[in-house]
Amino acid sequence: MAELAGNVLVAQSGGPTSVINASLAGVVSEALNHECIEEIYGGLNGVLGILNEELIDLAAESQQTIRALRHTPGAALGSSRYKLRRDEDFARVLEVFEAHNIRYFFYAGGNDSQDTADKISKLADERGYDIRVIGIPKTIDNDLVATDHCPGYGSVIKYVASTVREMACDNASFTSSGDFVSILEVMGRSAGWIAAGAALAKRKDYPNDPPHIICLPEVPFDGAKFLEDVQRTLAREKYCLVVVGEGLVDADGNYISVTSGATDNFGHAQLGGAADYLKGLLENNLNLKARTAKLGYVQRSAVHLSSKADNDEAFMAGQAAVAAAIAGETDKMVTLLRGDTDHYTCETGLAPLADIANGVKPLPQDWIHEDGVSMNHQFIRYASPLIQGEVPVPYENGLPVVAHLGKIRVSKKLSAFQTA
Amino acid sequence: MAELAGNVLVAQSGGPTSVINASLAGVVSEALNHECIEEIYGGLNGVLGILNEELIDLAAESQQTIRALRHTPGAALGSSRYKLRRDEDFARVLEVFEAHNIRYFFYAGGNDSQDTADKISKLADERGYDIRVIGIPKTIDNDLVATDHCPGYGSVIKYVASTVREMACDNASFTSSGDFVSILEVMGRSAGWIAAGAALAKRKDYPNDPPHIICLPEVPFDGAKFLEDVQRTLAREKYCLVVVGEGLVDADGNYISVTSGATDNFGHAQLGGAADYLKGLLENNLNLKARTAKLGYVQRSAVHLSSKADNDEAFMAGQAAVAAAIAGETDKMVTLLRGDTDHYTCETGLAPLADIANGVKPLPQDWIHEDGVSMNHQFIRYASPLIQGEVPVPYENGLPVVAHLGKIRVSKKLSAFQTA
Repeated sequence: MAELAGNVLVAQSGGPTSVINASLAGVVSEALNHECIEEIYGGLNGVLGILNEELIDLAAESQQTIRALRHTPGAALGSSRYKLRRDEDFARVLEVFEAHNIRYFFYAGGNDSQDTADKISKLADERGYDIRVIGIPKTIDNDLVATDHCPGYGSVIKYVASTVREMACDNASFTSSGDFVSILEVMGRSAGWIAAGAALAKRKDYPNDPPHIICLPEVPFDGAKFLEDVQRTLAREKYCLVVVGEGLVDADGNYISVTSGATDNFGHAQLGGAADYLKGLLENNLNLKARTAKLGYVQRSAVHLSSKADNDEAFMAGQAAVAAAIAGETDKMVTLLRGDTDHYTCETGLAPLADIANGVKPLPQDWIHEDGVSMNHQFIRYASPLIQGEVPVPYENGLPVVAHLGKIRVSKKLSAFQTA
Repeated sequence: MAELAGNVLVAQSGGPTSVINASLAGVVSEALNHECIEEIYGGLNGVLGILNEELIDLAAESQQTIRALRHTPGAALGSSRYKLRRDEDFARVLEVFEAHNIRYFFYAGGNDSQDTADKISKLADERGYDIRVIGIPKTIDNDLVATDHCPGYGSVIKYVASTVREMACDNASFTSSGDFVSILEVMGRSAGWIAAGAALAKRKDYPNDPPHIICLPEVPFDGAKFLEDVQRTLAREKYCLVVVGEGLVDADGNYISVTSGATDNFGHAQLGGAADYLKGLLENNLNLKARTAKLGYVQRSAVHLSSKADNDEAFMAGQAAVAAAIAGETDKMVTLLRGDTDHYTCETGLAPLADIANGVKPLPQDWIHEDGVSMNHQFIRYASPLIQGEVPVPYENGLPVVAHLGKIRVSKKLSAFQTA
């Protein structure tokens, strides 16, 4: 493979994770190792910044800043939900690439983003523009195919499981004051990967440890069974800790949430989440108090409690993307491959972008315990290695330190573009 | 003061904090230093366990376990909401004290608990039963008088401010996708101490840092002004991070929440919180998306991100309670006194239990910025020292380790008691 000289462009897309910036740091630090790479640019706000030619000079950032990306949540380059649909969008991307001599494009994101990268790669090939396009996996949803797991997932479940373990100590304090139910709502609109991760909070050989009930989108919600499950736990423990995935659905596939007739003080329609629904169901049917907590975006930005294994793998995925491109690979995504041994190992591989774009990896049904509300040993064996180790986050004045990119702009060379 | 020989009883009450067990560890470790103290008992579930003569032998716990209490959330002895009201309740407490030769009683709690301790102390005095009763301050609400601040407060605001700083990185990723508002609901039913603490997330000299808007119970909620404040922030930042105290009220003192006509799928009345209300208000009046997170009990149990200053002071308060009792003090609560110097120092003092029982410390109105939605330098100067330092929490298998008390029961000597 002939050496391809030119510039790097890296961008981030979709919902951030705790470690998406670790992948960015991996790209930058690996790119610096290769003489054929001249400039290292970051595209602001995903594809939107590329369309608008909003590029920054990442090589000009201090080494301190690049290092601090490893403990900075959010997408440091900015992300976007903009979707390339029109022919002129794709043509514009190539125009920007050409104007800035971009020969290496790295895109961190989920299915949609890998689909975009695939289309850009194929169009470049069609037009004879020499570029290497490598995707970097990123999603707390852990639903990408061809990879054992996704960077971002280990950290979100480490945070959720730790939160369950800590909150359980609090909840257990009140077993003398009558029955008490605590409900924690976690993310996962279409799959229960994150809710399932809460199962890691149980100590080995203590199946009665919290979380006592995990409500997964994979198991259609049955209110009567839920009430029975809660009562059985209360009879044994005097309190019950429930974890619910936001994407909980009923037997007809409708989201479980507070909707019908609900209005705010101004008379407007109001939407509550799954946890609020469960709270109402419990309090209206059983003589008890329930309290809810909803982690929202907190869970995907809690770098201070992110997984070292996840952070290291995210960094490694960024490095591997650059190394693969330098080696002549293109139109592929970096994957994480688990070794066959009992001792967890992880190395990177590659899979065609088209495969990633068209697949979704469900939570295996046979990893769900037959009780429908807990996970079996297959899930624990899968997930436990992903949460190992702690990321050393520096604190200043009592608070975690995050990186602030200088964002030195690259001069624009093209006229403005009209986005959709 | 003559030396008083006998046993110690320590109990915990009210809502737990991240560091209430650090105070317990302080009591145990200091009690071991004094020869006149024979046994060290813990009362399970606050006063309820005393009434029911449910005492455990704390001296029999391993040193490892006592040390691990410093990073174990919840009330390790159990708490309760039971309130002593009847004469026979108080008489029973003394009967249990006498049966187990309790000569030192330490009670960690808020106003109500200090009131209970005061009444027990006065009744013992009246009956001529020689005992020393010392209260230990404990509340995330930070509303006890006579003490500069309360153990538990520093940790909850360190967690909230850190969460805001991390979530802000995530929220800032989406400034290209149209206006976005993020709403974080924190505890504080009757005062804004916790919501105010979120202000610490701002870097010095960056007044535009998140949180952009803090909705305090001390400032009656004005929907129109709120919408204006949000729009002003969005015009400048493209996103807006709001922190709201759960106790937000309108001009008539009514809680701001989703109530009128709201029902769940089963047609039952449903209660949403302040964050849900604000989300509805924003989405129905402005063309934007809002997302909520509600920290619930997570915020008061997040030991992994607790404040070292707070943890150390909680431990010191436990030690000081024992030392004061040994020195002959009784019917008092340990207080935390801040030094007059620029460099923060903290030592313990004592105040009569009756003073604590009858007072509530409000968030000073003149610490609220004139804009009504942020805190001024007086609050920052007050709160910043309270969040300094990190507690070294051990992790095992990727998760924080918590203590599990052996709870070796002390043999009962009395017949059963009928609680109210």
